Amino acid sequence: MFQPIDWRNVQFGDGFLGERVRVNREATIPAVWRHTKATGRADAFKLAWREGAEPRPHQFWDSDVAKWIEAAAYDLAIQPNPETEAVIDGLVDDMAAAQMPDGYLNSFFQQVCPDQRWKNLRDMHELYCAGHLMEAAVAYFQGTGKRAFLEVMCRYADCIERTFGTGEGQLPGYPGHEEIELALVKLHAATGEERYRRLAAYFVNQRGQQPNYFAEEAKRRGEKPRDTYENAQAHVPAREQATAEGHSVRACYFYAGMADVARIENDQALAGACRKIWRNITRRRMYVTGGVGSSFQGERFTVDYDLPNETSYAETCAQIALVFFASRMLRLEAKAEYADVMELALYNSVLSGVSLDGERIFYVNPHAYFPAGYRFDPRGPRLVGVRPEWHGCACCPSNLARLFASLGGYLYGVGGDRLYLHLYASSSAECVWAGADCRFSVATDYPFGGAIRVRLDQVPPASAKLCLRLPGWARNYKVLVNGGEVCGKLVEGYLTLERVWRAGDEVELSLPMPVEQIEAHPAVRHDVGRVALKRGPLVYCFEAADNGPDLNQLVLAPSPEFHLVQTEIAGLPVPVILAPGEREDAAAWDGELYRPLGWSRTHPVQLTAIPYFMWANRGDGEMLLWLRRA
Amino acid sequence: MFQPIDWRNVQFGDGFLGERVRVNREATIPAVWRHTKATGRADAFKLAWREGAEPRPHQFWDSDVAKWIEAAAYDLAIQPNPETEAVIDGLVDDMAAAQMPDGYLNSFFQQVCPDQRWKNLRDMHELYCAGHLMEAAVAYFQGTGKRAFLEVMCRYADCIERTFGTGEGQLPGYPGHEEIELALVKLHAATGEERYRRLAAYFVNQRGQQPNYFAEEAKRRGEKPRDTYENAQAHVPAREQATAEGHSVRACYFYAGMADVARIENDQALAGACRKIWRNITRRRMYVTGGVGSSFQGERFTVDYDLPNETSYAETCAQIALVFFASRMLRLEAKAEYADVMELALYNSVLSGVSLDGERIFYVNPHAYFPAGYRFDPRGPRLVGVRPEWHGCACCPSNLARLFASLGGYLYGVGGDRLYLHLYASSSAECVWAGADCRFSVATDYPFGGAIRVRLDQVPPASAKLCLRLPGWARNYKVLVNGGEVCGKLVEGYLTLERVWRAGDEVELSLPMPVEQIEAHPAVRHDVGRVALKRGPLVYCFEAADNGPDLNQLVLAPSPEFHLVQTEIAGLPVPVILAPGEREDAAAWDGELYRPLGWSRTHPVQLTAIPYFMWANRGDGEMLLWLRRA
Repeated sequence: MFQPIDWRNVQFGDGFLGERVRVNREATIPAVWRHTKATGRADAFKLAWREGAEPRPHQFWDSDVAKWIEAAAYDLAIQPNPETEAVIDGLVDDMAAAQMPDGYLNSFFQQVCPDQRWKNLRDMHELYCAGHLMEAAVAYFQGTGKRAFLEVMCRYADCIERTFGTGEGQLPGYPGHEEIELALVKLHAATGEERYRRLAAYFVNQRGQQPNYFAEEAKRRGEKPRDTYENAQAHVPAREQATAEGHSVRACYFYAGMADVARIENDQALAGACRKIWRNITRRRMYVTGGVGSSFQGERFTVDYDLPNETSYAETCAQIALVFFASRMLRLEAKAEYADVMELALYNSVLSGVSLDGERIFYVNPHAYFPAGYRFDPRGPRLVGVRPEWHGCACCPSNLARLFASLGGYLYGVGGDRLYLHLYASSSAECVWAGADCRFSVATDYPFGGAIRVRLDQVPPASAKLCLRLPGWARNYKVLVNGGEVCGKLVEGYLTLERVWRAGDEVELSLPMPVEQIEAHPAVRHDVGRVALKRGPLVYCFEAADNGPDLNQLVLAPSPEFHLVQTEIAGLPVPVILAPGEREDAAAWDGELYRPLGWSRTHPVQLTAIPYFMWANRGDGEMLLWLRRA
Repeated sequence: MFQPIDWRNVQFGDGFLGERVRVNREATIPAVWRHTKATGRADAFKLAWREGAEPRPHQFWDSDVAKWIEAAAYDLAIQPNPETEAVIDGLVDDMAAAQMPDGYLNSFFQQVCPDQRWKNLRDMHELYCAGHLMEAAVAYFQGTGKRAFLEVMCRYADCIERTFGTGEGQLPGYPGHEEIELALVKLHAATGEERYRRLAAYFVNQRGQQPNYFAEEAKRRGEKPRDTYENAQAHVPAREQATAEGHSVRACYFYAGMADVARIENDQALAGACRKIWRNITRRRMYVTGGVGSSFQGERFTVDYDLPNETSYAETCAQIALVFFASRMLRLEAKAEYADVMELALYNSVLSGVSLDGERIFYVNPHAYFPAGYRFDPRGPRLVGVRPEWHGCACCPSNLARLFASLGGYLYGVGGDRLYLHLYASSSAECVWAGADCRFSVATDYPFGGAIRVRLDQVPPASAKLCLRLPGWARNYKVLVNGGEVCGKLVEGYLTLERVWRAGDEVELSLPMPVEQIEAHPAVRHDVGRVALKRGPLVYCFEAADNGPDLNQLVLAPSPEFHLVQTEIAGLPVPVILAPGEREDAAAWDGELYRPLGWSRTHPVQLTAIPYFMWANRGDGEMLLWLRRA
């Protein structure tokens, strides 16, 4: 177990992630605010809406505002911004004024349907909005030291705590869209209030108990209960769940909350369920990019090995939620496997969600894109090859903003005498390591290069362990301390160097980054006979912009020799992969649609692959990730 | 040009098609009647429905009843059945009694919304139902000689002729779902009435003229016109159309009507448009099985080369409609290419629509089927691996029934001194050839064998041409007359043997039928790197029942040697194809979902392929048509 070094104590340098955090600060957070304001969301807490007026508040709105505040609040701690702080203070004033005497606070229900409060937990996102507001309040408290928002949310949490439970006169319910579980764990950590810890545990444990709350609630509304509540992970109690089911964002938020509760309650049975679900996701239901939730229908996990590429849903929020789950599993047990998936999703499926300029966001992330014919696809409207500026259901933009604004908090952790480096990025950090105030910095070209230099600027006096994650993708490594090669000990995937450190000590970890051809388990029927190119943590793909259209006509040469070429895409420097290949010769066809094998020709071509996360930054064109192999 | 030898003059023998016609007679036609009766359709013309009663008549119902009558009527001419004839006479009595004084007849409009007559041609299928009733009336007249039904429908046609047109007080409209065009051509042929020929030509030529009738009609209903009426082929006038667009059944019925009108009006511009559309379908938008209309969304043609396999729609009615279009193009110009596609669709995509026992019908015909995960597909409910007994929208069952009941009419034709054999099936026929009464018979194992023996039992006195279609799939052939090899002359794909024939002459055509590997144009991205096995006119596929599940793990060996083995599927004898192949070894994986290339193993397997049309007759399991090649 370790305590993450929180984002306030990590300063990004000029490297790749630092640049992404800067773009998030300078482009994404302001863009999300502009849209949040322009669409009426930001004013909802003023309770000034009147029947018939447009826009009508929506049950998701509070969460959108909350997630923007959370993002901005993280960033305020790094980069003070009085203007933003004033905006948030104004929003908090609105909330404080809007809050009902009993603590209830929801701009949609208070304005649009006050009599429907807590009547439809399954669909109406009340507890979800509450959770996001709590996360925002904790972030704003931590980012600024101001308590007003935190107090508003403690009053709301207290209201929820009185309302929900198995006691006399309480509702034995839980959210239709999970989120409040992990939020309450944060609120508990920020306030020390045991009530919030117990309430988080209650929401995790009550879910899926019989009689099913959503069924009972539906009957009270005069509706027929559904056959299953699998879509909201309420088909069986949490500790009986072993596979990832239902709506993928709900699911991964819930699993993150489960892992949190397992950790703070030291609940081994719950931790066991988390491990089973983790294995199911990462061994059966995850794209090579870390994307999850393959189906448009229900935005959900489906069945093992069902990972279609062209029609992958892989909502940006779902892979962000997987990062949350992974980071919580890592806190539960410091195994590199969790950080591997966190890294995989971050650099591939999460980053693909946002344009390189930070202004545009994918909701749906295809893993192959062929625009011809898509207008006839029932899933068409959301299946686009250019990131939109905004979405009616606007969960993804602010989710990206808050993840990148708090990204420093995912890199490092300290557990007693162990200092963990989970993710590698040029940065410096301060922490308490082996009981002493310490400072260290990391310099690296990661994810484009595998040389990682760690300098320990201030060290503990006694022997202490530096734990460097050896990424799952690394086939070998070399580690030097002050220029001399050392061995270290591999503990759960972390290369552990124990010694009495001196200030100024330098540790160099070298991870060779050859281009690798990755194949999928042959039960993934969409990928058989194909390979994905991967280099370090980055999955690559092929775009029409480099390779021309009809990408399925391309075949990778056998035993190809790969070359890296440094270039720029949308202004961002990147090493692209060149590879020898062949292209089917459509010109060797004379108008036929079908003909006997034997007449076809191919001609040699040079293939160019770019990191998957960079696709769709050069207009609307085909993209292919899994390339046919000879 | 030729005149088909009509189905009344063709007697099937014991061969493959004869057996299918027998199953149609003994199973499909009775099954369709049972469901037509049980669902209330058969009683709709009694006009006994009252508001609130269930089932409520539907705007498709008249067409369902009509198509069953048509099927039964064809069969009555071959196999008299007084019971069936009495049922139809009863239905005709109902119709005669229901018909309005002005000739109008529609059980839905007359009962459910009499004030809506002719108000929504775009959606409400009035003219479509009328067309099907006309086809049924012609068939019943030809099958039994009874005129009552024909007279009812002539009165209705007269009513329609008065109503529609560009004259003063007429509606310049045309059907939303085409069908009446080809029906009027049949009515014209059966009655000699020029009015019906002119009305057919009107409906073909008026379509898509500006101002668009559907737009005008929508405005009259107070609705917003649509952006395009492409879905109903009304985006531009018929003779300006060059690509197959929109709803595939509507489209191919329309193209059939266009070809009919082009022929009877000798309209070269219209014939030219038909040829362009034909080329677009067969060179760009048709599955290797002859299936058309690839998209669930709009049940329609999409764009060139957009032929997804797992999610193919390929409605059974659409490929039946393609047979109609092909047979009309063939009448327009006797080129084997048209008969090739007619044969291809018939033996593959049409036959796949019905179970081998004739009792169950596919609406949607996938070209690959992997049930895992389908419950999460937005197109799921119609995407099934077992043919249902009936469909709420019941167009396909009666369509199959009427095609097979009239199948004899598609085999042969006579044009002056030319006797055409388009399709090969064990059968005998009578006709007037070169001005003389003639008789001939054919014996063949077709489609499983390529030996075709034609015996001329009664011949014309003068020199005459026997025109044997040389199928497009045949790479070579041998033809003997009375045991001696002859050359013949190839005219538009027909091997033409001209001589003074003697009664008892025997012509033997031998078409070698090796198993061929077929590949698709590389712009069909779904099929690249894969082959379809084909033997003669039959496309083969792989089922889990023979090959185990996870069919995409199979690869065909390079330069495979194929073997045929005679077996039975659901009681039907069939030569299946055995081929050497490899299967990816899932056991060589240790729980990983992704890993570097190089560790995988395959093991040799024997692959078994069955004719595509026979799939899904042994339970619900995977099916793959396009197999990966090494």
